[in-house]
Amino acid sequence: MSSDVFSRGGFTLPGEAGYEDLTLALAQRWGADAIRDSDGTVLSDEIVSAGLDIYSTICLVRIDNQWAKAHTDKLQQNYLMSFPVVADGNAVDIDLLNGYFREQFEVNANDDPKAWWQVFDRTSGREISADQWDLDPARGIVTVRNTERWHLYTVNFLAYRIWEAISMYNHITNNWGDREHLMPIDPIYPATQELILRYLERWLRDHPRTRIVRFTSMFYNFAWFWGDSPGLRYIYSDWGAYDNTVSPYALRKFAKAKGYALASEDFVNGGAYCSSHNVPARRYLDWMDFVNEFVVAFGRRCIDLVHAAGKEAYMFYDDHWVGTEPYGSRYKDLAFDGLIKCVFNGFEARLCAGVEGVETKELRLHPYLFPTGLKGEPTFKEGGNPALDCKRFWVNVRRGLLREPVDRIGLGGYLHLVQDFPDFVDYVEELGKEFRTLREIRKGDKPYAAPFTVAVLTAWGKLRSWICNGHMIHGLELNELIESLAGLPVEVEFISFDDILETGIGDDVGVIVNCGRAPSAWSGGRHWKNERVLESMTEWVAQGGGLIGVGEPSACERNGRYFQLSHVLGVDREIGRSLSKDKFRHREADARHFIMEDVEGEVDFGEDVDGVFVLGGDTQVLLERDGSPRMCTHRFGKGRAVYLSGYRFSPQNTRLLHRALYWAAGRESAFGYWTCSNIYTECAYYPTSNRVVVINNSDKEEQTKVFDSRKNGIDVSVGPFGVAIIDL
Amino acid sequence: MSSDVFSRGGFTLPGEAGYEDLTLALAQRWGADAIRDSDGTVLSDEIVSAGLDIYSTICLVRIDNQWAKAHTDKLQQNYLMSFPVVADGNAVDIDLLNGYFREQFEVNANDDPKAWWQVFDRTSGREISADQWDLDPARGIVTVRNTERWHLYTVNFLAYRIWEAISMYNHITNNWGDREHLMPIDPIYPATQELILRYLERWLRDHPRTRIVRFTSMFYNFAWFWGDSPGLRYIYSDWGAYDNTVSPYALRKFAKAKGYALASEDFVNGGAYCSSHNVPARRYLDWMDFVNEFVVAFGRRCIDLVHAAGKEAYMFYDDHWVGTEPYGSRYKDLAFDGLIKCVFNGFEARLCAGVEGVETKELRLHPYLFPTGLKGEPTFKEGGNPALDCKRFWVNVRRGLLREPVDRIGLGGYLHLVQDFPDFVDYVEELGKEFRTLREIRKGDKPYAAPFTVAVLTAWGKLRSWICNGHMIHGLELNELIESLAGLPVEVEFISFDDILETGIGDDVGVIVNCGRAPSAWSGGRHWKNERVLESMTEWVAQGGGLIGVGEPSACERNGRYFQLSHVLGVDREIGRSLSKDKFRHREADARHFIMEDVEGEVDFGEDVDGVFVLGGDTQVLLERDGSPRMCTHRFGKGRAVYLSGYRFSPQNTRLLHRALYWAAGRESAFGYWTCSNIYTECAYYPTSNRVVVINNSDKEEQTKVFDSRKNGIDVSVGPFGVAIIDL
Repeated sequence: MSSDVFSRGGFTLPGEAGYEDLTLALAQRWGADAIRDSDGTVLSDEIVSAGLDIYSTICLVRIDNQWAKAHTDKLQQNYLMSFPVVADGNAVDIDLLNGYFREQFEVNANDDPKAWWQVFDRTSGREISADQWDLDPARGIVTVRNTERWHLYTVNFLAYRIWEAISMYNHITNNWGDREHLMPIDPIYPATQELILRYLERWLRDHPRTRIVRFTSMFYNFAWFWGDSPGLRYIYSDWGAYDNTVSPYALRKFAKAKGYALASEDFVNGGAYCSSHNVPARRYLDWMDFVNEFVVAFGRRCIDLVHAAGKEAYMFYDDHWVGTEPYGSRYKDLAFDGLIKCVFNGFEARLCAGVEGVETKELRLHPYLFPTGLKGEPTFKEGGNPALDCKRFWVNVRRGLLREPVDRIGLGGYLHLVQDFPDFVDYVEELGKEFRTLREIRKGDKPYAAPFTVAVLTAWGKLRSWICNGHMIHGLELNELIESLAGLPVEVEFISFDDILETGIGDDVGVIVNCGRAPSAWSGGRHWKNERVLESMTEWVAQGGGLIGVGEPSACERNGRYFQLSHVLGVDREIGRSLSKDKFRHREADARHFIMEDVEGEVDFGEDVDGVFVLGGDTQVLLERDGSPRMCTHRFGKGRAVYLSGYRFSPQNTRLLHRALYWAAGRESAFGYWTCSNIYTECAYYPTSNRVVVINNSDKEEQTKVFDSRKNGIDVSVGPFGVAIIDL
Repeated sequence: MSSDVFSRGGFTLPGEAGYEDLTLALAQRWGADAIRDSDGTVLSDEIVSAGLDIYSTICLVRIDNQWAKAHTDKLQQNYLMSFPVVADGNAVDIDLLNGYFREQFEVNANDDPKAWWQVFDRTSGREISADQWDLDPARGIVTVRNTERWHLYTVNFLAYRIWEAISMYNHITNNWGDREHLMPIDPIYPATQELILRYLERWLRDHPRTRIVRFTSMFYNFAWFWGDSPGLRYIYSDWGAYDNTVSPYALRKFAKAKGYALASEDFVNGGAYCSSHNVPARRYLDWMDFVNEFVVAFGRRCIDLVHAAGKEAYMFYDDHWVGTEPYGSRYKDLAFDGLIKCVFNGFEARLCAGVEGVETKELRLHPYLFPTGLKGEPTFKEGGNPALDCKRFWVNVRRGLLREPVDRIGLGGYLHLVQDFPDFVDYVEELGKEFRTLREIRKGDKPYAAPFTVAVLTAWGKLRSWICNGHMIHGLELNELIESLAGLPVEVEFISFDDILETGIGDDVGVIVNCGRAPSAWSGGRHWKNERVLESMTEWVAQGGGLIGVGEPSACERNGRYFQLSHVLGVDREIGRSLSKDKFRHREADARHFIMEDVEGEVDFGEDVDGVFVLGGDTQVLLERDGSPRMCTHRFGKGRAVYLSGYRFSPQNTRLLHRALYWAAGRESAFGYWTCSNIYTECAYYPTSNRVVVINNSDKEEQTKVFDSRKNGIDVSVGPFGVAIIDL
């Protein structure tokens, strides 16, 4: 296993000018076959000439700051809602940017505010007619007249972004001092498109040694509105939201294309904006579609230039990815050659690995070579332990890669920072070899999986496969759950309520998972008011399907119940709407059940849901706390349902979920093949090569039995965070 | 203090035939001046002739079971919703009483079901037209035709109650075996009224020695629907609900009186019925008003007979009290002479003491002389400690009586049960003397109170003064809070949203308390969507008022916020609707504040609310948990707001609330007069007699300082559960 294929390749190193020796030495040691630059670093001639593939980063929306400064009407915009102001008289002044980071935003007074803005009385909910307010553009203040005393007023207004968010983050995080603030230009305008295309052509000519053009990424960054108070640095952050794609120009095009116009409130939504966590409105989905169509069309023109220059185009699936929608139907039309995803977790590895229509998939591992991490914690500085961080991230990512492979890994940031952390340098070498080994085994070989597919039902469906909202949100049930699913030997798909209505539930689906809190996009919110959805789900379970409900599945208050599928789940939840109704007193929790067989000690679902009650004696309670069931099973018709009051990613819960899936599917007898006795270990069986890969997710040496296709146990010992490969 | 006035009077003893010696001995010992019978007991001649006042119990709706049996169409009725049934074909049979206790209910097939019932598809929410279903009266089954497969169906139907609930409870609890089941007749019919009036006249003649007719009570019991499964013995219990007042006859009268008709769904409400915990609909309030008018009018005819017979009429404010509404404007028209309330707690003492339009108020103390308590716990049997129970109840009740007095106390149940509990007998003697002493001091003397009134704002307002829903609901924030308020030296009133809109907020009000969970009647629910309410409350605080919000004050999701008064409170709550919005990072909790001065150790608010966040740096956080503020203060205009994440009745929280009231009112300097240093003790200062009563609420001897009108501390020692009286 020590041939060149395992010690070199599939690894992208961040080069750094001024550290040429280090760059080349580590390229050799880590087996890098490609070198990249990063935001804030450059590659010197010496590095570029070292015979490795060169990735060069390009961010098309911040290519020419001089032009941007000269054409501020072509900067990207977004709607903001001013902070509410109480009227204590018959007029009120609203300082639009009060509370916002004024280095990020500038009020757009160019496009007629009366045409594009809205002022609301947020006490009555009424819009204020345009003749009752005026903007003082010099002061950025809107005055509302004839106010109702003691009401709250807000303005939905357009702001230009005068500092591109990712660049701003890097600038501030890395103390770039008085380096120029880069502004994001909007490619929606013909003039901007022309600028971008000409720039790109020139850039491609100027980068003869670049083989891979790494787009960071396309045009629109996820929503990230900053505040001016240290107490509220970030006001709104949503990795999937389309706030930054808005402009009067685009809104006019939308109205023409879709036949109706959107208003500012479609985006602002009372100040909640259009968060990915919330169920998207049909109008917002139309907007996303409109933007996606544009981004794919114009993006393709850029990528065609790259291809014409004999280079490949890779997309960084993190920053300005909005509008590309890798899980959308148009993504393949972009014709990207590669996709790079920045990952901490297994679900993110799956998010990258699962994209169709792109050849090469690459993971940017963490920690980044920055002094501090995303939350300000030390990494490559005093107090940090980047080697341990790296191991902890990797064991989770690795689980996902056993199921679905990627082609490459890599790092990002400032290479020189690793010099003080020799154990990190050692571990990355080991990790690189491990990655290549596992990639080789997975190549062309599909691991053993359950004889049924698991469908995760959300309001977003396939479009938001394997994500909730960017990186892991600890405590968000679905995020925790997909992290377990990412490494389980089951096929997983993500379906929407529209899918159920339009195409039905696939024959291969054995279990549907609905997981989240009401009325989130993850649980489904208003979709559970759709009687056709309720019919379909009821019928499907009655005829033999399996349902796993987590947290507040099918929750929305209607028709006297909270869980709309309570008749299927056998449980409902008291949320203070029916306090005078007594609840069925279930029998004492009985943990002796197929699902519970590998549980040792307490089951920890994190901050789970309370006030749950069973509907009758045919619901079996497996776990409870203070009288509130935490895990239940219920048979409905020919099908089965399992309820969990919450979910947290952990070895024990991953196993419990694995078993629950088999029980819900009515396939208990099929369980136990190619599983491990020790829950801190997992395995993947590759039938073509007849090999089993056993991974140890813990920081200790673990003994485990791998149960084979006859459920015979094979004893294995695996080192901390380690891997064992058994040829059968 | 040992004169006769303290050893005799104001005490009602439950007599028991067969135990004449015991009855008379205890009457002497406990200083009883009256003897009563109970449900299930009778008084013998010997007892009746002992020279004590005689209370005789009468329940007018179960006076003549023979007549009831012969006129089952005159039994009381209520709407029930059948349990939901899933249609798995194109028709579904619904067994109406399935799940209900068939000894309590009988389907009413006399009044045309098509006219009075409704069948609902509870998946779509649609009513099924009457030609699509039929009742088989013999089997009590409704068949619904042309059902939509996999939908849930329910029937709202009328049922006669064939076993009166209180009698049923006593029968079953006390194992009355094959004693006849008493049926409740409905006084809405002229024939029933005639029966009742004639019976009452005869009964009054037949009870010449009875001085007090104790009505138990008027006509309609609170809602109490029983189930047939041991797992769901009580399906629906609501002490304030009007479900039992329904009949086609009354519904027709209502339609004529109010000009519009109610439907079954107005009562059934998707199976949630019209719980007191929920915000009442205008239509339901109209129904309550209609019933109240009838009950007062016919009730008065009964009471007039009592008065004509030279007797007094007392009402038992617990069982069949629905429709009397002691806090309603018509109550005085009933002309009751006395009101008897069964109490465990201080707020119940206040509930009785605060009623206007009745001369004598009496508390029925707990424990009842029954072998087991309301929750089945042992009292007067092996394992019970009724003396200790009695002390624990009394110390809470006593707090309330220091503020507002009642005239009498008493016991209920089977007297012979006390024979095995001599310490109980001793303690009741002591308690009686203590009661008489405190009553004497309070007589004509108003204790010192805060220089401002506290108004508790709920959807019910004055009508539900001092109650949430019957006895203490532990964990219900408002119930816990009014228990603290019951004994605090502050004037308290209960106001509704309508009061605010119609008459404004009284000049004497210094603090408004809004306490409860969304969207309960206690917090206010939909009323917080009323902009006039928001205006008034905002203005009132801005101009110097104090607001205390507990749990989810002013909560309803609208206009981008959850607490509609978040601008006043300085806090809001994240309930999963705006997860992508970051929250202001408040400064570390700083418990050094006027409100916190007497806090020692942890503050325990029970199951309080999480996910709270401050709106900005001007909100001061006094307590937090896991980053979620639990107590905050915020100044708004000239006024102040205090937020508490929950509330539990305890000595520490009572003190904390007392201080919070003064802080919110901006009257800190007025705090500290006639208070105790030791939070387990409380005091009441009576200015006319210049005396202080100091009570010890704990089971240990306590040392305390009583601060006088110059804030000088007077040292006092008070025994366990004891009282000390200081003449100044």
